[in-house]
Amino acid sequence: MEQDTLDRLALDSAFEQARIGLAEGGMPIGAALMNSEGVVLALGRSLVVQQGDPTAHAETVCIRNAGRRHDWASLTLATTLSPCAMCAGASVLLHLRRIVIGENHTFSGREDWLEDAGIEVRVMDDLRCQSMMERFIATRPELWHEHIGSPRGE
Amino acid sequence: MEQDTLDRLALDSAFEQARIGLAEGGMPIGAALMNSEGVVLALGRSLVVQQGDPTAHAETVCIRNAGRRHDWASLTLATTLSPCAMCAGASVLLHLRRIVIGENHTFSGREDWLEDAGIEVRVMDDLRCQSMMERFIATRPELWHEHIGSPRGE
Repeated sequence: MEQDTLDRLALDSAFEQARIGLAEGGMPIGAALMNSEGVVLALGRSLVVQQGDPTAHAETVCIRNAGRRHDWASLTLATTLSPCAMCAGASVLLHLRRIVIGENHTFSGREDWLEDAGIEVRVMDDLRCQSMMERFIATRPELWHEHIGSPRGE
Repeated sequence: MEQDTLDRLALDSAFEQARIGLAEGGMPIGAALMNSEGVVLALGRSLVVQQGDPTAHAETVCIRNAGRRHDWASLTLATTLSPCAMCAGASVLLHLRRIVIGENHTFSGREDWLEDAGIEVRVMDDLRCQSMMERFIATRPELWHEHIGSPRGE
């Protein structure tokens, strides 16, 4: 399959994770890790609310679920939302090859850190991801600001 | 108590975590989070080996153990070793106030990201931390390179 098709499949997997997280009462952000053949190796969704863990962002949970491995530099991480400083930092640490981002309109993460580290960044401008985040931010602004590290009330 | 005394106490707590981790067969890296009064709020040690979790670095585990909170911007994170891209990224995300680093000779992390974000960085040049890491790197080089995200064999 073409890279574009594989990217869209991985993003679909990430989006499904986001939907599951929303249904659990959590933040609707999901991630999927795939190899160059398109095999999905791990999934993750934000578990900050569900587990009371401030580090349990979707991408970090996805990397956690992938376990200890030596092939990071060949892998693509798909995420519904532009990755925050921690998740971008984890991607830089592990030298991931590519990051596929659903959308970066509701939140613009540290794509600059990814690009500086030579990681290929592809933004899909996916309207499903964007509208799901917009609805969530409008209905749960406190949770959202906590998630992105904004001090209370900002 | 003076800040210097509090910093040294927090680093001692972090060092004790590193010792516990080494005794468990893990990487000897520890962290402690304290408030401005010197109260230790959370501890963490590298659990990468113990839990098979590539994101379980000491500082990230320590932040995880601190739970969801709104006072990150007033807190100091003490760590035995200069923080990697993921742990520095988590600190930037949460707008931590200060990072106290045991040593940065065996590994130089992303202190530049911390400083760019306005986080105060204090390096203690602690010889206990340094000699513990040096011994570990000499005896378990593969584990060490995995921890810092170096591709196998580099």
